[in-house]
Amino acid sequence: MTIEEMRIRIDVLDRQLVELLSERARAAQTIGNLKAATSLPVYEPEREKIIYANVRAANKGPLPDIELTHIYERIIDVMRALQRNELASQRNAQAAQVERDRSGLAADARASETGKKQ
Amino acid sequence: MTIEEMRIRIDVLDRQLVELLSERARAAQTIGNLKAATSLPVYEPEREKIIYANVRAANKGPLPDIELTHIYERIIDVMRALQRNELASQRNAQAAQVERDRSGLAADARASETGKKQ
Repeated sequence: MTIEEMRIRIDVLDRQLVELLSERARAAQTIGNLKAATSLPVYEPEREKIIYANVRAANKGPLPDIELTHIYERIIDVMRALQRNELASQRNAQAAQVERDRSGLAADARASETGKKQ
Repeated sequence: MTIEEMRIRIDVLDRQLVELLSERARAAQTIGNLKAATSLPVYEPEREKIIYANVRAANKGPLPDIELTHIYERIIDVMRALQRNELASQRNAQAAQVERDRSGLAADARASETGKKQ
């Protein structure tokens, strides 16, 4: 195989990697949503230990465990940031809903007051 | 879906990611071997630009391009280190072969000298 042929192969692998990373990101977003509902924290050290153990157990080389862990540290960082964003936007949406409900109730109360006065 | 079910899904995705990263690493090693034969450098900025462009083009979200690039910077770093190791071990093997050939020739020369003296 020539270097050019190997590079075409790597470009294909990279597109597959982007697809898997995107799917993993969507799963992390979903967990972010579920955490918003249950008040669980984004950072869960025990869960992260399980992730690293799973990754090392799946590793058959040629990357040394330490190098694979380096890549995964970055993946986890990025996923955590995504989950924080998801949680924040969920909480903003909830706060906006509470605000809308409160304004609605106040308006109803005012309307009812006005009704009484007529 | 519960958080537990999503985590089982993520563990499966992680094992698939490890498989793809390993395959990409093997391809990088092969390129390292080919580079050893052609004296190409490990660091090729133009090639890395193509890799990042390919990754961004494949990205359909939910990760922002900048976050995906962060992950890829780490992947490229690790692959470059692997390629450097591959090149170094290739060159050590070549140097050892040259040394063996040289010793062999010297031994032949000595044997031939001894032969003449007899």
